[in-house]
Amino acid sequence: MMKKNCTEGIMNFKPINNSGAVEGFCFVKSLEIKKTAKGLPYLDMILTDRSGEINAKLWDYKEDLHGDITVNIIVKVRGTESMFNDAPQFRVERIRKALPSDQVKVEDFVPSAEYSGESLFDAICAIVEGFENEDLKTLVLTVLKRYREPLTVCPAAFKLHHAIRGGLLYHTLSVLRLAQGVCAVYPLVDKELLYSGAILHDVAKIWEFEVSEAGIASGYSVEGSLIGHLVKGAMTIEQIGTELGTDRELLLLLEHMVISHHGEPEFGAAVRPMFLEAEILSELDMLDARIYEISAAVSEVPAGAFTARQWALDNRKLYNPGLHYVTPKADLL
Amino acid sequence: MMKKNCTEGIMNFKPINNSGAVEGFCFVKSLEIKKTAKGLPYLDMILTDRSGEINAKLWDYKEDLHGDITVNIIVKVRGTESMFNDAPQFRVERIRKALPSDQVKVEDFVPSAEYSGESLFDAICAIVEGFENEDLKTLVLTVLKRYREPLTVCPAAFKLHHAIRGGLLYHTLSVLRLAQGVCAVYPLVDKELLYSGAILHDVAKIWEFEVSEAGIASGYSVEGSLIGHLVKGAMTIEQIGTELGTDRELLLLLEHMVISHHGEPEFGAAVRPMFLEAEILSELDMLDARIYEISAAVSEVPAGAFTARQWALDNRKLYNPGLHYVTPKADLL
Amino acid sequence: MMKKNCTEGIMNFKPINNSGAVEGFCFVKSLEIKKTAKGLPYLDMILTDRSGEINAKLWDYKEDLHGDITVNIIVKVRGTESMFNDAPQFRVERIRKALPSDQVKVEDFVPSAEYSGESLFDAICAIVEGFENEDLKTLVLTVLKRYREPLTVCPAAFKLHHAIRGGLLYHTLSVLRLAQGVCAVYPLVDKELLYSGAILHDVAKIWEFEVSEAGIASGYSVEGSLIGHLVKGAMTIEQIGTELGTDRELLLLLEHMVISHHGEPEFGAAVRPMFLEAEILSELDMLDARIYEISAAVSEVPAGAFTARQWALDNRKLYNPGLHYVTPKADLL
Amino acid sequence: MMKKNCTEGIMNFKPINNSGAVEGFCFVKSLEIKKTAKGLPYLDMILTDRSGEINAKLWDYKEDLHGDITVNIIVKVRGTESMFNDAPQFRVERIRKALPSDQVKVEDFVPSAEYSGESLFDAICAIVEGFENEDLKTLVLTVLKRYREPLTVCPAAFKLHHAIRGGLLYHTLSVLRLAQGVCAVYPLVDKELLYSGAILHDVAKIWEFEVSEAGIASGYSVEGSLIGHLVKGAMTIEQIGTELGTDRELLLLLEHMVISHHGEPEFGAAVRPMFLEAEILSELDMLDARIYEISAAVSEVPAGAFTARQWALDNRKLYNPGLHYVTPKADLL
Amino acid sequence: MMKKNCTEGIMNFKPINNSGAVEGFCFVKSLEIKKTAKGLPYLDMILTDRSGEINAKLWDYKEDLHGDITVNIIVKVRGTESMFNDAPQFRVERIRKALPSDQVKVEDFVPSAEYSGESLFDAICAIVEGFENEDLKTLVLTVLKRYREPLTVCPAAFKLHHAIRGGLLYHTLSVLRLAQGVCAVYPLVDKELLYSGAILHDVAKIWEFEVSEAGIASGYSVEGSLIGHLVKGAMTIEQIGTELGTDRELLLLLEHMVISHHGEPEFGAAVRPMFLEAEILSELDMLDARIYEISAAVSEVPAGAFTARQWALDNRKLYNPGLHYVTPKADLL
Amino acid sequence: MMKKNCTEGIMNFKPINNSGAVEGFCFVKSLEIKKTAKGLPYLDMILTDRSGEINAKLWDYKEDLHGDITVNIIVKVRGTESMFNDAPQFRVERIRKALPSDQVKVEDFVPSAEYSGESLFDAICAIVEGFENEDLKTLVLTVLKRYREPLTVCPAAFKLHHAIRGGLLYHTLSVLRLAQGVCAVYPLVDKELLYSGAILHDVAKIWEFEVSEAGIASGYSVEGSLIGHLVKGAMTIEQIGTELGTDRELLLLLEHMVISHHGEPEFGAAVRPMFLEAEILSELDMLDARIYEISAAVSEVPAGAFTARQWALDNRKLYNPGLHYVTPKADLL
Repeated sequence: MMKKNCTEGIMNFKPINNSGAVEGFCFVKSLEIKKTAKGLPYLDMILTDRSGEINAKLWDYKEDLHGDITVNIIVKVRGTESMFNDAPQFRVERIRKALPSDQVKVEDFVPSAEYSGESLFDAICAIVEGFENEDLKTLVLTVLKRYREPLTVCPAAFKLHHAIRGGLLYHTLSVLRLAQGVCAVYPLVDKELLYSGAILHDVAKIWEFEVSEAGIASGYSVEGSLIGHLVKGAMTIEQIGTELGTDRELLLLLEHMVISHHGEPEFGAAVRPMFLEAEILSELDMLDARIYEISAAVSEVPAGAFTARQWALDNRKLYNPGLHYVTPKADLL
Repeated sequence: MMKKNCTEGIMNFKPINNSGAVEGFCFVKSLEIKKTAKGLPYLDMILTDRSGEINAKLWDYKEDLHGDITVNIIVKVRGTESMFNDAPQFRVERIRKALPSDQVKVEDFVPSAEYSGESLFDAICAIVEGFENEDLKTLVLTVLKRYREPLTVCPAAFKLHHAIRGGLLYHTLSVLRLAQGVCAVYPLVDKELLYSGAILHDVAKIWEFEVSEAGIASGYSVEGSLIGHLVKGAMTIEQIGTELGTDRELLLLLEHMVISHHGEPEFGAAVRPMFLEAEILSELDMLDARIYEISAAVSEVPAGAFTARQWALDNRKLYNPGLHYVTPKADLL
Repeated sequence: MMKKNCTEGIMNFKPINNSGAVEGFCFVKSLEIKKTAKGLPYLDMILTDRSGEINAKLWDYKEDLHGDITVNIIVKVRGTESMFNDAPQFRVERIRKALPSDQVKVEDFVPSAEYSGESLFDAICAIVEGFENEDLKTLVLTVLKRYREPLTVCPAAFKLHHAIRGGLLYHTLSVLRLAQGVCAVYPLVDKELLYSGAILHDVAKIWEFEVSEAGIASGYSVEGSLIGHLVKGAMTIEQIGTELGTDRELLLLLEHMVISHHGEPEFGAAVRPMFLEAEILSELDMLDARIYEISAAVSEVPAGAFTARQWALDNRKLYNPGLHYVTPKADLL
Repeated sequence: MMKKNCTEGIMNFKPINNSGAVEGFCFVKSLEIKKTAKGLPYLDMILTDRSGEINAKLWDYKEDLHGDITVNIIVKVRGTESMFNDAPQFRVERIRKALPSDQVKVEDFVPSAEYSGESLFDAICAIVEGFENEDLKTLVLTVLKRYREPLTVCPAAFKLHHAIRGGLLYHTLSVLRLAQGVCAVYPLVDKELLYSGAILHDVAKIWEFEVSEAGIASGYSVEGSLIGHLVKGAMTIEQIGTELGTDRELLLLLEHMVISHHGEPEFGAAVRPMFLEAEILSELDMLDARIYEISAAVSEVPAGAFTARQWALDNRKLYNPGLHYVTPKADLL
Repeated sequence: MMKKNCTEGIMNFKPINNSGAVEGFCFVKSLEIKKTAKGLPYLDMILTDRSGEINAKLWDYKEDLHGDITVNIIVKVRGTESMFNDAPQFRVERIRKALPSDQVKVEDFVPSAEYSGESLFDAICAIVEGFENEDLKTLVLTVLKRYREPLTVCPAAFKLHHAIRGGLLYHTLSVLRLAQGVCAVYPLVDKELLYSGAILHDVAKIWEFEVSEAGIASGYSVEGSLIGHLVKGAMTIEQIGTELGTDRELLLLLEHMVISHHGEPEFGAAVRPMFLEAEILSELDMLDARIYEISAAVSEVPAGAFTARQWALDNRKLYNPGLHYVTPKADLL
Repeated sequence: MMKKNCTEGIMNFKPINNSGAVEGFCFVKSLEIKKTAKGLPYLDMILTDRSGEINAKLWDYKEDLHGDITVNIIVKVRGTESMFNDAPQFRVERIRKALPSDQVKVEDFVPSAEYSGESLFDAICAIVEGFENEDLKTLVLTVLKRYREPLTVCPAAFKLHHAIRGGLLYHTLSVLRLAQGVCAVYPLVDKELLYSGAILHDVAKIWEFEVSEAGIASGYSVEGSLIGHLVKGAMTIEQIGTELGTDRELLLLLEHMVISHHGEPEFGAAVRPMFLEAEILSELDMLDARIYEISAAVSEVPAGAFTARQWALDNRKLYNPGLHYVTPKADLL
């Protein structure tokens, strides 16, 4: 995504009369409380909307006056722009949290999946409804419905692939679609087992991040770090499966698929995949993440150019052959 | 594949009258010329047909009498069975190479792809005929047609995945079908570039093995060991592309896909994949090989059991969940 | 342990009159049903008692006559010894499973921990009874008591360290004693957290092996392979802790200690240890296993000599300095 | 250790009348001679005492006036504080090296072990005095006494664990105490051999660093880099053992323990540990270093928080469970 | 190479009368177009000549006035020096590209091999002229002569070893000389095969870099990244060898030497060296690069000191024993 | 070396009249005392001379009759040949150790360097005599002369490269000759330092093996395993250098070269090479070993063929291009 040159119009802000000041809604991407040389507190923020981002300062920060301004929320600001060290800077004069009555939509301010969380959720459930194996159908639907709300906003990652609002279901449905492609070629694959694994493999990511109400991960939770979404996912299946009386062999298979889906211990797998559907799930998870990350990286450089080395992709630099590329996007619905 | 218990009827051999002797066609899977304690030469062979295999000895081997019996050919034998060290052994009385007039089909004696090499070849060409990019269409078709004959019998490996007659095109079309599945989900992928890479990635395997006329690889060729099918494939594309005047950027992209398709240097890639289609090709190649190898390994053990550790699969032991498994087989045509 | 030279008296068997035959109880260490050249079934076994082991054959095996003779049980045999290929062989004439009325003790026939499972169990419980943290005390005692029976016989490994009857609690108490030593030096360590982790770290090994009634592991269970004792252990803590209403932060800490106690992903840890007590547990677990394995390996060679390379110890060969060595043994009670 | 906010009182300096200037003793933690835009030399220093640290500048540096001010010494300074770029800065007006008549104690200005070097030394010797093996007793005591002076001030590391004055003996005695704990559980261990190795394993660190008279390592010596303390330690044992006529087998064992105590070649071991006591020493050395580093890292963050990734601890981030933590400290005397 | 202190005379520039301004030729080592706070474009450059380098700014950059000033060319500048943030800065008043009529020599401004490209080229050809094997002689000479022009200026690397004008042939001849030394000791080595490999191993580096007319590599070309000089080198040999009708076995051997000369896959080898001459070539290539890099690194520090850690040399720090060192230089002609 | 077909004449044994028996001297390559089925001891040996090797049995072994026959000595035998399991076997009738009066030369029976140990020793000393640096000259000559006797027979390895009588000096002089070649190209190298390191790098191998009087290593000594020839070599230099008062900086440099000459910790280096001469020594040591091992391996297969995978050469299979190969041999004198 090319960053908008902020000197031509300040983000999507609107001018206020001829005062030189502008006003609008935006997202607080980062925020630090600092002190001036005189020891007075001020806010140092990065504000974003769909048109770009800007460094902003609120010089006379008083919590009782301005309210509890935190990172990862939507605010309304008023202020003026100036240049500082060759870079535009926004001096905030007024700031307040967005109110329900403002009727602003989170999706308009944060990077979000192209499909709504609800539509992705419904598409996944529709596939499960068609299962013949009643145990799998009941178990997977129960998990999905019990955690419907967090699932529809959760990102798939903190940084890296699908680190966007709704990214978790977006990635989940992508893997499911890829799995359908594999099953069309290889009928020997146990289709419903593979699909169930695909749907449940990352479900415990809803506990892995600290996620703001805007669906943005701001870091790992304690549980996310100490246990991780692989083991937590298996625990969730064990607990709900035990409640439902699911066949124990099926539970073992599903739990194995979840704890092995990172493929290699060095990538976080608790065990290596030990049967065909677990192996396929692990490879499709990797494939989907790689497609997302490579196309995201490459979309930042022009055709015929290489990206910088990408740490998350084995430190490779990547080439943009510039043939057909568009913004990374899957055809899911 | 369960080995047939050879004591109930000797392979598919037919009894000859009531002599106790039997007779039939079979494939020479291995052959050594040894000497008895008295220094007389004899042949120690393993003979196979679709029903099993048996150790066979020809005690009075004389080349001028029996002709040039070698490994990896089809022969007609007559002889009798006996037990030796708890194992059945076949004593050969007569042996000769199969003649054209015998009208035996190689496919009936060696592990072969389920589809004929010609039908796989035609299916691949049909996909290429639909390309919009004329350079790619011409280049890929020229390569295919120039090497049509060896391509239709070549195995995909010496040991391991698709080590069967016709295995190369079988694997190639499988990867192509998987690629179609990915393109259906991700329209941003350059479809024709990916398909071209999928078709050409292993094409130089036709020079990598010593292949008998029966389409069985008996080892690596000198060129296969010293150069390998990755670099040889890129050389072939360079040479034919130069002849045809193919766009040089396209040649670079295709050559890169071929020399990078093993993904990691430690797995034989000359460079790591550096653009999206190269990465996808590399992952689908791995996925297809793994599906083949895992289902082949698992089909040897009963449901609920583990295989021995598989050296070619990171030394994993694999589990047969025993749900739907059938012999490894793709739906390709 | 030096293997007894079996030619001087056959194991602990007793001669029967002057018949040349002997008779006694022993343990069936391995058993295969084979067929003679004539196709008749016979049993090929290795029989052991505390004095050594011997290869044994029962030539006329009939299940309805001899009963269901399996591996890892105690039997009474009668027979005679002879030499075969330079090695003594025992020809079984009579065989039957040991009966309760025989009053033989399993511990007399299989390698067992020097302390009884019950005494180890009681010593561990006594330590937990002294905990100040009521949540930890209740949780750990509940787990121990719920699985008291399998815990008292389970080995700690299939091969390798403490692969003996009762080895699991033996290893557990050893780690606990080492942990007490560390806490004496470093008072900053949270003693009860570390002790709880030490007690629970391997508890799910009771599901990891196929264990015979004699407390001998004959292989991994399906659950042991697909899930493993680390994740299964965390699931057990989660389930029982949820039942008991244990503090959730404590549960997270304990579960983390269990899934991280192999230290490195390549050694099977699902995550790396992330706090002090988890790190100490992981290192003491390694230390205890190494002490056991090295002293067991070294006790096989004389002072001043090296063992063969030990696969489980990074392929090292080990030296016996021959100063004070005795059979590996901890002072635990 | 929380850094003191230097704006409330400048370190432990004392105000001089009402001049605004302050005065006191402090340690020169770093020092660079720089030049102003006009080419005049000035000193840019970091000064520390137990209450914190401050950046200090001496603007008109003349060596003949101020004397030879170097890093890692104690000085008396007088000056005034001001703010520069939001950070406090100290302008030095007078500076001189501390004199014996000032009676300042090094321990009050640099991070030091909690126990005096002498008391640690005596505690170690007391253990050796109790040895039954005369060769070991004589050898170890000779080494200790020959290098008593440098041993009592030497740190155990340049950065990382025990990088404090007296840290070498602190670490040595900690490992010795841990070894006592292991011997209490495992009587088969050769106690005096293990203790001797524990005492001598790092003894050559006295040559590995450039250590100032204040006992602070400021870098590696040429010998420390080219030979290292493992090989140098073995040479020292060889030389002194040869002088004393120590049993050659004992010398080999001790030298092996010293050159193998880093466990793995990649961590600097010249050979892997090959007998039990060498292995135990290597693991306890690692355990003690890890306890120190983890508790030091964790003490910087509040309960419930994670540290940043720790390069020296496999790049792990570490959690502070916040149960009982206090400053890292062993109970040694 | 010690950087000249630029305050004593500005590079090799000449003063202009008494104006305070100076004038001279220099090389544009780096160049960025930046904007002032007011949005006016200016050039920020690093200019070098043999005496040192200086930061330079051209404040009023207008392309139509100053012409197309780019990186890696020679320019004539006039201007004045001043201090900025303790560092000298050069304010450019006039600038233009050097003209043929200026008769400046590139070698005087950029780091160049000590021998001219032509003399190195001739020395290599002279060795080939003496070959007995006509196929090798013809092939190697044809390659050399076809690419004579780029070969004589190309550097051997972008960063790292021999990253200087003419560095490719300098490195090539060094390896050839080392190979002569090996053949003198080991007559069993096939001398002409080894020499041919040594000459051709890096020849495709002429396509690997973006090289300015001054013979300075400013980055990798697309072909250099996607194909690399190993595979491209083998393609070149294949193509020219096919043209010339060279013996196919010889071509395979040479191509193998080229694609294996990095020794290990992780260092970029497409295959590992598989015969003696390929192995020797690979080791001499490494040896020559290491000699260059170590002596270059060490020449930056005084005798008795260590360099900083060198990323390209396994992160080692290197010692200057200060015995005989001079600037890295081989005796080649 | 092609093994002689032993059926045409039994080794170099001479027939005795027409008895069918033969007689001669040979080397006992391996020896085991076994027992027949009846419990009688017999010797099972492999005997070798320059013409081949044969399995031999002495059926009625009585130590008081036949004397102390051990491995790695020369014996005189008489006996007859027969076939057993398709392989020739030699039945020993008489056997005795070779006597001085037999005047057999060890070199005629064991693989030996082509040059005598004395001539290699003298050639090395001659080079040292020419040193200008008196400290180096005295030190190196003192070491050489003190250990002259074991140096002249010691092999360079137990298995692998130069595992022959006199192989240590053969390898030493080869490395020295290669070093001369490098110094001719790179005059900046400190020649005498490099040569000294080359001469001393493996000198402590004289203590590393158990070497029979015939100069054959039969295994590692305790010191060889626990300390290794790198650290032992540095200790030797330290001790002799201290005696001689050699410059301490020179001692550090030489000791560093010795303990770093395996290059990487994983190959046994105690530290990585840190200056130019140490690096060159390490690479030439590797190069010389590789030349020896590759040419030895390749000489076992015909031109155009590959060897089996060579464990000691990264598991590579190696190709025999069949151009000029002769038995591995350096031109050293």
